[in-house]
Amino acid sequence: MCQSNPEPMAQNVSVKPGTIDTKKSYTKFERMMFMNKKYKVAIVGATGLVGRTILKVLEEKNFQNVEYTLFASEKSAGKKIEFLGTNYIVCKLEENSFDSGFDFAIFSAGGSTALKYAPIAASKGCVVIDNSSAFRMKSDVPLIVPEVNKEKIFENKGIIANPNCSTIQAVLPLKVLDDKYKIKRIVYSTYQAVSGAGKKGLEDLESGENGKFYNNCVPQIDVFLDDGYTKEEHKMIDETRKILDKPDLLITATAARVPVMNCHSESINIEFETEVDVYEAKMLLQNTDGIILTDDIDNNIYPLARKVDGYNEVFVGRVRRDFSVRNGLNLWVVADNLRKGAATNAVQILEVLINH
Amino acid sequence: MCQSNPEPMAQNVSVKPGTIDTKKSYTKFERMMFMNKKYKVAIVGATGLVGRTILKVLEEKNFQNVEYTLFASEKSAGKKIEFLGTNYIVCKLEENSFDSGFDFAIFSAGGSTALKYAPIAASKGCVVIDNSSAFRMKSDVPLIVPEVNKEKIFENKGIIANPNCSTIQAVLPLKVLDDKYKIKRIVYSTYQAVSGAGKKGLEDLESGENGKFYNNCVPQIDVFLDDGYTKEEHKMIDETRKILDKPDLLITATAARVPVMNCHSESINIEFETEVDVYEAKMLLQNTDGIILTDDIDNNIYPLARKVDGYNEVFVGRVRRDFSVRNGLNLWVVADNLRKGAATNAVQILEVLINH
Repeated sequence: MCQSNPEPMAQNVSVKPGTIDTKKSYTKFERMMFMNKKYKVAIVGATGLVGRTILKVLEEKNFQNVEYTLFASEKSAGKKIEFLGTNYIVCKLEENSFDSGFDFAIFSAGGSTALKYAPIAASKGCVVIDNSSAFRMKSDVPLIVPEVNKEKIFENKGIIANPNCSTIQAVLPLKVLDDKYKIKRIVYSTYQAVSGAGKKGLEDLESGENGKFYNNCVPQIDVFLDDGYTKEEHKMIDETRKILDKPDLLITATAARVPVMNCHSESINIEFETEVDVYEAKMLLQNTDGIILTDDIDNNIYPLARKVDGYNEVFVGRVRRDFSVRNGLNLWVVADNLRKGAATNAVQILEVLINH
Repeated sequence: MCQSNPEPMAQNVSVKPGTIDTKKSYTKFERMMFMNKKYKVAIVGATGLVGRTILKVLEEKNFQNVEYTLFASEKSAGKKIEFLGTNYIVCKLEENSFDSGFDFAIFSAGGSTALKYAPIAASKGCVVIDNSSAFRMKSDVPLIVPEVNKEKIFENKGIIANPNCSTIQAVLPLKVLDDKYKIKRIVYSTYQAVSGAGKKGLEDLESGENGKFYNNCVPQIDVFLDDGYTKEEHKMIDETRKILDKPDLLITATAARVPVMNCHSESINIEFETEVDVYEAKMLLQNTDGIILTDDIDNNIYPLARKVDGYNEVFVGRVRRDFSVRNGLNLWVVADNLRKGAATNAVQILEVLINH
């Protein structure tokens, strides 16, 4: 038995979570109690850097009506992971892994694993939240940042995509500002932490001059595409358009890796259709769920990667008019890329599904 | 005697260097020999990080017709510095330091020292090349990057300003592209090394978590001004306009410090008046003195801070069309901020003066 879940397995029930059932007069908790049911959730890629962070965020969330099974590749299968106060044994991911009736899965195992196993899981009635880029731009896959487009979660056909880390943190402030002032064009320049490249990224930085990240700024994340942009830059452009539901939005991007362990910083230059009041924009940002406005230059206060580490929110500062263009604004946006950029966002999607 | 120059002092002569004399039929070398003259050059702030780099660059240049005197504040006066194969004793900078007839001085001693001593030196016939920001925006002070506006050196009235490090490396590619395509607007985002903050910056990074630079991106360089921009961001905006001689050029900037020891990187987004051919733009950059085009994405080649360390040139790569705007281009520009961003540029100005 690969799982040491302290709770006995719940029996399968006929109500499919994530879809609307007919027992609308009961609250979710009443229904759970009524059915003596726990949601079965698979965490695929539990031993990776994002996987471990997912487990941390799940412990903090402490959902009462969920039982978990942890999966990883053959290499990591059999490992013990302390989670929710007990030892979980990591299961090997196999084609029949989803036969036992999972309600939901969070995949954080890379594109090829997702392409193979997410459709299998979905075909067995499991709703998959996938962290890879494999499904993000597919038209029938919702690309979700809950603070921005939570309502699209329920348009899923079995797979929901978790966006790219650098995109997630950008779209929170962009959405609230777009709603008010209508974004015309965005120029992104990113300062991305090495944890975005997984454990290998952190090991590379720790290896000093032997690695490529130490004491360096690397203007390449992911591979180059034919137009001279990297795939990471394309993700920022394409995913921002999809999440904001503005397919023709004008965006350009430069994505660079900096020698910071965790938390991406971003310089975001925005041109709007309508006039921007900087004070009003700050108030809008401050009053948005998931954003912490960190902008008090009189006291040299602005978002800093090292301070944002471990937080689930997106930190926005250096909010100021761009005098070089009509209706321009500059922002400095920082978030924990392992948390809000990956794990937290995925768990937030799970939370919407299990609370539905 | 604070100076151990191995050569005997040259006697004062009536020909003022840096101005046009009447002996035009002789070459500069003939004139030097004819007069048995060496230029007397003061290096003020010789013990600082930029000062030491100036000495290195001067050793590499190995001017044959110059004798040097090194100055520093009282704190560093009396120190021995190995320079040009001998030991120089650092002199204390005093009000009468320039009485002994210096032809040129390179100041790298901060704004307040420059404000006090540069006018004194100039009043005694010494042409000062000043690294501080004190005189840069004064209308009667040329702000010089030799590859861009060498001809303005001779408009000096005793003081020539060396621009801000992050500006110098930007204006080289901007100038050649502006000449061809006419720049309309620039969006700067910088990734600046801690050596730009001097020895203190390097010590801060080395001190790890006790400092502010380690494992961090700090979106503040220099103090904040009333409009929400830092002084560093204003320097980039104002100095770019002055050097390119385009006082109304539309520019915005975000300047951030990254945990890199030396060499600034910059993400530069440019909008032009006329259509840009990317291949042609690359050829123009490649054929510009002082620029090394480093742009071969098929082999993952682009400018990297760690590789540029120790070079005098500006490295330009990631040259690509910005599809979000008519006539847009993105660049990634890296240079050694202690060399081309400060010392090399100042020595290049000195070279123009002594070779005139």
